[in-house]
Amino acid sequence: MKKIKIGLLGMGNVGTGAYKTLQMNHERIEKVTGIDFEITKILEIDTERDRGVEVDKKLFTQDADVIFNDPEIDIVIELLGGYEPATGFMIKALNSGKHVVTANKAAVAKNYEELEAAAKSNNVLFRFEASVGGGIPILNALTTALLANEYEEITGILNGTTNYILSKMASEDRNFDDVLKDAQEKGFAEADPTADIEGEDVANKLSILMSLIFDKRILPKDIPTEGITKITKQDIADAQKDNKVIKLVATAIKNDNGDVDCFIKPTLLDKKHPLASVENEFNAVFVKGNAVDELMFYGKGAGPLPTGSAVMGDVIEIGRAINK
Amino acid sequence: MKKIKIGLLGMGNVGTGAYKTLQMNHERIEKVTGIDFEITKILEIDTERDRGVEVDKKLFTQDADVIFNDPEIDIVIELLGGYEPATGFMIKALNSGKHVVTANKAAVAKNYEELEAAAKSNNVLFRFEASVGGGIPILNALTTALLANEYEEITGILNGTTNYILSKMASEDRNFDDVLKDAQEKGFAEADPTADIEGEDVANKLSILMSLIFDKRILPKDIPTEGITKITKQDIADAQKDNKVIKLVATAIKNDNGDVDCFIKPTLLDKKHPLASVENEFNAVFVKGNAVDELMFYGKGAGPLPTGSAVMGDVIEIGRAINK
Repeated sequence: MKKIKIGLLGMGNVGTGAYKTLQMNHERIEKVTGIDFEITKILEIDTERDRGVEVDKKLFTQDADVIFNDPEIDIVIELLGGYEPATGFMIKALNSGKHVVTANKAAVAKNYEELEAAAKSNNVLFRFEASVGGGIPILNALTTALLANEYEEITGILNGTTNYILSKMASEDRNFDDVLKDAQEKGFAEADPTADIEGEDVANKLSILMSLIFDKRILPKDIPTEGITKITKQDIADAQKDNKVIKLVATAIKNDNGDVDCFIKPTLLDKKHPLASVENEFNAVFVKGNAVDELMFYGKGAGPLPTGSAVMGDVIEIGRAINK
Repeated sequence: MKKIKIGLLGMGNVGTGAYKTLQMNHERIEKVTGIDFEITKILEIDTERDRGVEVDKKLFTQDADVIFNDPEIDIVIELLGGYEPATGFMIKALNSGKHVVTANKAAVAKNYEELEAAAKSNNVLFRFEASVGGGIPILNALTTALLANEYEEITGILNGTTNYILSKMASEDRNFDDVLKDAQEKGFAEADPTADIEGEDVANKLSILMSLIFDKRILPKDIPTEGITKITKQDIADAQKDNKVIKLVATAIKNDNGDVDCFIKPTLLDKKHPLASVENEFNAVFVKGNAVDELMFYGKGAGPLPTGSAVMGDVIEIGRAINK
């Protein structure tokens, strides 16, 4: 039995989800892959918090170099979030010959070239399935099983918070501020909801998708982006009268010149559109390829376990690749 | 540039779709993978038919052994359909050291163990993404990016013909026989529609899904199966009054004993269910995993190019695996 050791950077909600996913399904993963994956070191200051999962305290370290310098660790999972120190840590891990998995959309969108270059020059793998669409395995599909397509369009509902707010405004005929407050109390929106409601989070994800499928780099800040703060319950009622719904939609679409147009904005969708029935915290990605035609992927765009599923999926793929 | 040569068995509609998919997107595939894939031999009697694509007639052969014995061919694509000679050819190809890709759900569902065993003993790859859900990359997702899950349930609309008929019966308030006749005239249903309307085609696909995700072998003929021939327009009208739709649904679900129950039958779905809005010739697969929770994949379940996309996706994955 091959053993693969993993260093985990950060054990907040997502880190805990990844840890739990591996613990819950370790037996099945080992049976299918023939690999015994084990998290052997965790960079985390808070060693006392009750995470609802048993963690040997000897795994915790407060020194990231202990992980990068451990010759037994093959894979580093970065789940700290934010630009720094996350990006610096990923580069350091790659330069130490570790394969890297992350869910960090902000860092990947901003530093894509640098991270890819570091992976390439060190001949290691860099994967970030969880950074777009949470548990939905969209990046894997677009870069493997669907590779025999030229993509013509990708359209998505890529932020659970804003979709939850728009869904509740519609189903309960309430105003934006009112639903936002409610979502914050229930933990569906953050105390500072700016990145979600202004579309910045979606811009990170669209930037990553475009890098992968159109081979086009555009920084999130350069994507024309309009959030949902100006949507009123009257707008939604008017849409419903026309048999339409309003969703925050991210679009990247080939234009007649062969270049790609992209934008993020609240969009009227006919109720028959596959994205129209995507409600609450769910995400969905609609793709059009020149062979496969229309496809849609739907699932939970956030949450510890769905994100953990995507993170561990990347870990497993790396494990299989290096166990050949 | 690595070159990988392919032998194609059968150039009917699906074979032509696979050929066209490669031709259309050869440049992009070569750029991304660094591999020049080329179909160098085609087993096909009908060398004259206008397929809407240029094929060098020197590629055609009527002797399958010419393909199996060609040391330059690495991959054989089987698109003849039916049990035989397709299964025998696939076994022969595997035993000749060729990797095999097929879209043949009937042959895979019936002969899964034998085909997998032949692949394993010859240390070659055997892939069949196109056999379930046409262009939807569901098998790839379930066996790679989602592997960090125990699956709890899989539910699908897996046959485009029956979904087309049920959709038209609902939207146009017509009877089964009437819509079937219309579908046959338009080419959406076969002259002998039995395998579709009685659910046999769906049983093949559910059998394959269960082999892959629950590691449980059940032959299609042993899956309790009810088709759509008894559905009346009155049934559909009654469902609509209750805000429901009728779909032909295939289900495999873990029961309390940890075993898997499976069945195929016309099913009432609430209009809010993700599968309820899947219309006409589209297919969709709904999966529940213990980490990722609910996911749905939606796309074209048939057609030359969507099926060609899945076939060539398998070919590309094999190419990458053997080009390491």
